[in-house]
Amino acid sequence: MISLERSKMTTQSESAQYVVDLSHSKAAVLKPVPVSAVTLAGDFWEPRLRRIVEVSLPSQYALLESTGRLNNFRRVAGQCDDPYKGLFFNDTDIYKWIEAAAWAQVKGPIPALQKLIDEALDLIEGAQDSDGYIDTYFSVERKKDRWTDLRDLHEMYCAGHLIQAAVALHRATGNKRLLTVATRFADLICDLFGPEEQGKRVAVDGHQIIEMALIELARETGESRYLEQARFFIDARGHGTLTGGRWGLEYFQDHVPFREMTTLCGHAVRALYYVCGVTDLVLENPDSALLDLLEKQWTNLTSRRMYISGGVGSRHDGEAIGKDFELPNARAYTETCAAIGSVMWNHRLLAATGRARYADLIEWTLYNGMLPGWALDGTHYFYVNPLEDDGTHHRQTWYECSCCPPNVARTLAELPGYVYSTRGDEIWVNLFIEGEAEIPLGARTVRLTQRTRYPWDGAVEITVGTSGAFALQLRVPAWCTEGASVVVNGEALNAPIVSGDYLAIRRDWTVGDVVRLDLPMPVRHWESHPHLHENAGRIALSRGPILYCVESVDYQGAELDDLVIDKVTPIDAVYEPDMLGGIVVLRGAVHIQQRDKGWDAALYQPLAQGQVDLATPLTLTAIPYFAWQNRGAAKMAVWLPHEHGCC
Amino acid sequence: MISLERSKMTTQSESAQYVVDLSHSKAAVLKPVPVSAVTLAGDFWEPRLRRIVEVSLPSQYALLESTGRLNNFRRVAGQCDDPYKGLFFNDTDIYKWIEAAAWAQVKGPIPALQKLIDEALDLIEGAQDSDGYIDTYFSVERKKDRWTDLRDLHEMYCAGHLIQAAVALHRATGNKRLLTVATRFADLICDLFGPEEQGKRVAVDGHQIIEMALIELARETGESRYLEQARFFIDARGHGTLTGGRWGLEYFQDHVPFREMTTLCGHAVRALYYVCGVTDLVLENPDSALLDLLEKQWTNLTSRRMYISGGVGSRHDGEAIGKDFELPNARAYTETCAAIGSVMWNHRLLAATGRARYADLIEWTLYNGMLPGWALDGTHYFYVNPLEDDGTHHRQTWYECSCCPPNVARTLAELPGYVYSTRGDEIWVNLFIEGEAEIPLGARTVRLTQRTRYPWDGAVEITVGTSGAFALQLRVPAWCTEGASVVVNGEALNAPIVSGDYLAIRRDWTVGDVVRLDLPMPVRHWESHPHLHENAGRIALSRGPILYCVESVDYQGAELDDLVIDKVTPIDAVYEPDMLGGIVVLRGAVHIQQRDKGWDAALYQPLAQGQVDLATPLTLTAIPYFAWQNRGAAKMAVWLPHEHGCC
Repeated sequence: MISLERSKMTTQSESAQYVVDLSHSKAAVLKPVPVSAVTLAGDFWEPRLRRIVEVSLPSQYALLESTGRLNNFRRVAGQCDDPYKGLFFNDTDIYKWIEAAAWAQVKGPIPALQKLIDEALDLIEGAQDSDGYIDTYFSVERKKDRWTDLRDLHEMYCAGHLIQAAVALHRATGNKRLLTVATRFADLICDLFGPEEQGKRVAVDGHQIIEMALIELARETGESRYLEQARFFIDARGHGTLTGGRWGLEYFQDHVPFREMTTLCGHAVRALYYVCGVTDLVLENPDSALLDLLEKQWTNLTSRRMYISGGVGSRHDGEAIGKDFELPNARAYTETCAAIGSVMWNHRLLAATGRARYADLIEWTLYNGMLPGWALDGTHYFYVNPLEDDGTHHRQTWYECSCCPPNVARTLAELPGYVYSTRGDEIWVNLFIEGEAEIPLGARTVRLTQRTRYPWDGAVEITVGTSGAFALQLRVPAWCTEGASVVVNGEALNAPIVSGDYLAIRRDWTVGDVVRLDLPMPVRHWESHPHLHENAGRIALSRGPILYCVESVDYQGAELDDLVIDKVTPIDAVYEPDMLGGIVVLRGAVHIQQRDKGWDAALYQPLAQGQVDLATPLTLTAIPYFAWQNRGAAKMAVWLPHEHGCC
Repeated sequence: MISLERSKMTTQSESAQYVVDLSHSKAAVLKPVPVSAVTLAGDFWEPRLRRIVEVSLPSQYALLESTGRLNNFRRVAGQCDDPYKGLFFNDTDIYKWIEAAAWAQVKGPIPALQKLIDEALDLIEGAQDSDGYIDTYFSVERKKDRWTDLRDLHEMYCAGHLIQAAVALHRATGNKRLLTVATRFADLICDLFGPEEQGKRVAVDGHQIIEMALIELARETGESRYLEQARFFIDARGHGTLTGGRWGLEYFQDHVPFREMTTLCGHAVRALYYVCGVTDLVLENPDSALLDLLEKQWTNLTSRRMYISGGVGSRHDGEAIGKDFELPNARAYTETCAAIGSVMWNHRLLAATGRARYADLIEWTLYNGMLPGWALDGTHYFYVNPLEDDGTHHRQTWYECSCCPPNVARTLAELPGYVYSTRGDEIWVNLFIEGEAEIPLGARTVRLTQRTRYPWDGAVEITVGTSGAFALQLRVPAWCTEGASVVVNGEALNAPIVSGDYLAIRRDWTVGDVVRLDLPMPVRHWESHPHLHENAGRIALSRGPILYCVESVDYQGAELDDLVIDKVTPIDAVYEPDMLGGIVVLRGAVHIQQRDKGWDAALYQPLAQGQVDLATPLTLTAIPYFAWQNRGAAKMAVWLPHEHGCC
């Protein structure tokens, strides 16, 4: 475990500590708030952020070492004779780890962590070639093969993660070492790839990320060259240069030019990193047609191709987004990295539009899409997140392709930067998390304190710590369809409250003013579109921003598939401090469906007129979906049969 | 088109022309009837067998040539300088084609076909190495790599298909040329692989087929060595020697020894070819424990993991059999070769047990599992057979991996051999197909004539053309649950008729005796096991042995997913001679489900109490599933929503 004790020395970052630096982006409706400006507290996220630093980052670093990922760098520098170990893009795990470790130090250096970063930086610097090239797989014996298989071998994917780590390290801590390395590699890429008329090679990498990474590098360095390079890569994709792979051009989104791509398809993480890059481009260069297209892609994705968890990716085959309504539960792929990619995309769309639906989805995906990927113990991860399981799917400490663990770590380390945005003299409250904030607002700094037991309770109390005229924009989540209320200093706000929108409260504030937002959290029964066959006759339960599931450990002997939710019996929400790290459990009644004996030996039978026979009710126990598989092997289901009521 | 005109010369086969030669198998309860003994007629199968020979085989041979498959042989003999073309197991397409072309000549040589066979034989003989090795991928420049990647590179898979083709050619036509080639290669394999104590290499191939091929070779040559070698390969599998592949050991069924494998899993075709080999072993060496296990595997497969079409394989990922109840319709994989593998397995299980359920499944799979893989035009094939489609899935003339087209051809060419079996003085009527048969029964030959419009009509008239005492065993299919009747010479048979069993009629027959079996064919509505979520609230239609589907061309404008079958309106079965080559169409009423407008933009909504609103009935038009996608691009569905009746 790493000690969170910070050294006295303050961080010396020259740049503001934004997760994504949209402070000068022409088309950003909302501006970011620095990660350092927000301090989380409370029982939910703060302990998790602490666990990332104290438990996850050191255990991941030990695995970077024991699996040979650090040695791959040592061998390039001639410090190690081992053969290259692991997959050809393993460098990225180190880069993402540095990104997480950088953001973890935004409030000041953590010596034990910085020591590991420094060690990694020494190795990375030592592995860079004289021309700026760096990729340990393509060094030593494979130097001659550089840039010969852009489709499959991820050189620019590695470059993209390197750049992101370098930008993060620079922003969060002021440390320029990695930025120097990354800039040299980016320059090499800019020299090699580009328009034919400049005598460069027209080509794209098989795995997107370089696009958004280069735009961030442009923002961090002020060099527009990198923005232009990102635009080049976006325009160059979609012309079928990545032919011959196992899953066709769609896998790489290389089947049509972006402006003709009306739906997200193919490899989910590639698709989502792609749209992040394009949205970043729109943020820098206003382009309403392109923004319209991005929003259309979003609408198709969310209304036809997304799991109720916010997860994306319906196919193991090609790790792909499926067709409309193709959302199998047990065979859901929903890679943890895809949930994170969706959070990153929605963060950019929120900035580009100010539309609450993107913040809604960020929140929902953090709780229900990303968080299931990380065990409560801080050291086990899911790569694949099914919505139903037979008890055989388990989190692992690491994977051969271990993209998800450090991706979870960097996202959690950045979380404070997602809570607020600003627009002119408005502070937008995107997420409800207990904590303090000192938000730069024009020339001022506005101090806000959030007190809430969210996500377990919808009461949020915001105390204003800075006087003056400005507005608070409070998100009223779309899940809160009824009964939301706002009280300012004890007085009910006399304004219509629209669910799924931000609510503006503009005042001349006095220190100590209190805004109390109440978001009722009744238990909700969800049904699916009639074309989503797999969920026909089934419901899912949610409460507030939390999706629920059932686990077989709570139903000794009964098959989850035979549980039938009784629609009339009320379901209670009970906070259990000692259960699964402290959760609200749903309790009510559930029936056991008695099956015709004929089904024991048959899969298909002539249609019977029979009624469903329901046995004595059992107690329903539903837990948050994010907390499943933390009590040993257990079957799990999100969607459960519900009683028709009429039979 | 190849002319079916046969040359006068009769076939000179020394061996009886059995599809699988169980004539001397110790544990075969039923004995086979030679392919040459049965002549099909009527409107259904006979024209299809003719189409295979006249249209499919010549078009396939042209593709073997144009895609470089034949050239791959020429280059080994030094007759061609082209590089090796295509996948590493492309030789097998030629072998399977020869097998089909051999059986097509069982009634006498077809010169145009024999000319092509002779050309192929010249090439194959020319490509065999001095030690017996033959695999064009591992010749010339890759000779040094032989037997270095048994997991992935299919050398014994190629050997297996070579042996099967050689046995078929010898049995069907008496031509020994390929048998000489195959025997030499089999001898090499027997010399190289085997028990450690014999100084041989203990290893198995990544793709099964060599097991059943070697056993057939043992039957054809009388050499027990090949049987022992098959046993060795079966025993050697399941010990985890095929490690490191993308889909793990299960893909190759190498995760547990066969005797511990309680369910079929992993790659579907591999699994089915595997159990064919093991069943062949049991047929030669009685082993009741192993036969019990095979029947248990069958029960699990058919009652938990098989599509209603008889198709097997739920996953594109690894072309695999899924878990219990994992049977997605649109993403069904159900490779045509897997349906054929299932027919092959059930043929062996029927012989080993005499249980009608295996013959039932042969019939059902021929009509609904294999036949959809072949277009009515005779030149297009499905590799993947979904049970629901959005209009984007089309048959192709050929595939890079083109295993299915020649597999369909060889199965159809063998079909006459599946119609009857014998046991002592009993003739077992497995399939109902119009035609003539001269069945060797002990010292006699019994002449039978079947007259029937099956599968469109369940009346089957069998005229006995040979006098004497013997029994007919008539299969009463399991789908015929009520009303089956048998009349002999106009007199109703006074015996209980059990559906899903054979019915014995033992008499001292006179020439001209007529047995009339009547199998009523009401339209049947099928529902799925409650755990098969995808089909909840849906029904499938069948009539007799034919599974039905709907195609969007018959529902202008309506979404198939919104069609609701009305359970009370009767459905008529109408023979349409000019539709899709002559089919029985189902006609009745179907409603259009009116969806709440909220679903236009949502995938999940809070559960409504709303009733399903059904608009004025449209005409239901359902066609046999095997005939889908023969009228241009069309959406298709097998499972349709049905009205609950109570809402």
